[in-house]
Amino acid sequence: MHRPVAIAVHGGAGNLARYKGTGRLEEAYAFLEQHITLWHTMLCDGVSALDVACESVRALEDIGYFHAGKGSSPNDNGYVELDASIMRGSDRAAGAIAAVRTPKNPIDVARYIMEQTQQVLMVASEADTLITREGFATVDASYFVPCDEVGAALPSTGTVGAVVLDRDGEIVAATSTGGTLRKRAGRVGDAPIIGAGTYAIGGLGAVSCTGVGEYFLRTSAASRILARVELLGEHISTATGTILTEIVHLGGDGGMIALDHRGTIAMPFSTSGMYRAAVDATSSVTVGCL
Amino acid sequence: MHRPVAIAVHGGAGNLARYKGTGRLEEAYAFLEQHITLWHTMLCDGVSALDVACESVRALEDIGYFHAGKGSSPNDNGYVELDASIMRGSDRAAGAIAAVRTPKNPIDVARYIMEQTQQVLMVASEADTLITREGFATVDASYFVPCDEVGAALPSTGTVGAVVLDRDGEIVAATSTGGTLRKRAGRVGDAPIIGAGTYAIGGLGAVSCTGVGEYFLRTSAASRILARVELLGEHISTATGTILTEIVHLGGDGGMIALDHRGTIAMPFSTSGMYRAAVDATSSVTVGCL
Repeated sequence: MHRPVAIAVHGGAGNLARYKGTGRLEEAYAFLEQHITLWHTMLCDGVSALDVACESVRALEDIGYFHAGKGSSPNDNGYVELDASIMRGSDRAAGAIAAVRTPKNPIDVARYIMEQTQQVLMVASEADTLITREGFATVDASYFVPCDEVGAALPSTGTVGAVVLDRDGEIVAATSTGGTLRKRAGRVGDAPIIGAGTYAIGGLGAVSCTGVGEYFLRTSAASRILARVELLGEHISTATGTILTEIVHLGGDGGMIALDHRGTIAMPFSTSGMYRAAVDATSSVTVGCL
Repeated sequence: MHRPVAIAVHGGAGNLARYKGTGRLEEAYAFLEQHITLWHTMLCDGVSALDVACESVRALEDIGYFHAGKGSSPNDNGYVELDASIMRGSDRAAGAIAAVRTPKNPIDVARYIMEQTQQVLMVASEADTLITREGFATVDASYFVPCDEVGAALPSTGTVGAVVLDRDGEIVAATSTGGTLRKRAGRVGDAPIIGAGTYAIGGLGAVSCTGVGEYFLRTSAASRILARVELLGEHISTATGTILTEIVHLGGDGGMIALDHRGTIAMPFSTSGMYRAAVDATSSVTVGCL
């Protein structure tokens, strides 16, 4: 008998209600509904949590519907800055990049940093130099989806992410973002920060966050969610809800996806919507936007 | 009757035993012994935790004995990269900079980001642009202390930091570093990361870490120490000891300074030494290197 597998992904929390009637929600929903089954099947077939986390985040980066990878938005200096991070629970290995401009798939670079270097976090132009030298696929400004008028009027705080539990009990969290539209150049949010936007502890759980990054940094959101599970034995739904409430009390907004070592999933958000999809340990499928 | 005040500072954990007989330990000890009393007196006179934290970290940056500010070491591309962060417990406001090259006192820039901007973390050249535009004192390569032969043979992982409790019950944590000697250019450790190198929660406590930053990132050290105090009611000595043990089990090394809301102080380290000084709520003074 196999141990349970589970996966949850998100495409960002934000004021998604503004997209009603534009077709954007339906488009994203269809994409998530189709792919979550695919990624779940990979897990059932024995593919590792690390591979499925990277596969799903890469797809979310490539589709251009979300504010990560191809869908990233230029900052107030007119260029895109990308951030990503990944963490493996069993040995708490982690890798991340922040404020880079060139990689097509930031999550692949985060994984490379985790697996092939002594560092955890690499930033800015020196990280771009590494990206070129190591032969990662790179893109220029023409690759990114142009900002639409709706997005320009109401800056999104989108991010993408995945939390995955595989058949061996391995737990992985991954997050990637292109930042907030017209964000201040050089600003880094929670997405590439281990402990804030991304955290995983073997035998316990994994978290990937989305929202106004400053509040997730100040609450050390991802690690403090798992601290509640670890130290109080709180249910993952209670722990995520508690920290999200703390964020809202500080004036922030957003959401997160989380799973525990049994494959239970929680996906709370305080915004009008969060692109999300999951298959939990009971094979129950959830897909939603609002 | 006044509420208790307390302060602890560190000048980095590392293999300080190698400095025996060189006079360096005595020099640092004298500096710490003289200044800790000065900073404690400021607190007794009603100066805020924020001002005393910045004053003490600025002095530790300026003296050139520690791997922060003037004492920072060039990375493997031959230039210095500076990181700093600060957090105030009462409202969990935070500010940080990473991988910047120009400020004389990185901690002042972190405070500016906390108090005057909507961001928490700013990095690299765009942050340097902000530093120049806002009129902060800047320095060039000639400012930094040349690496000595001892340091070159045994790279130090020094950082400086302060945790402060003032008469109003305000709690502040602050950390600043010039990185590890010959570190990889673009690498960022835990010092500028809220939740890893620096964390503070009002009414609870504050932590500033030093050591091999990657392990402090992976353990989300500062926030998980305070999570133990918050959720388990653990004594600050137990909580710091538990997370330091976790770091050592992962293969890391370092130390931290921490205080709780009553002004109790803990300063554990796993290396052969940590530059440290403190005055706790009972006015008991501690100064040490090994």
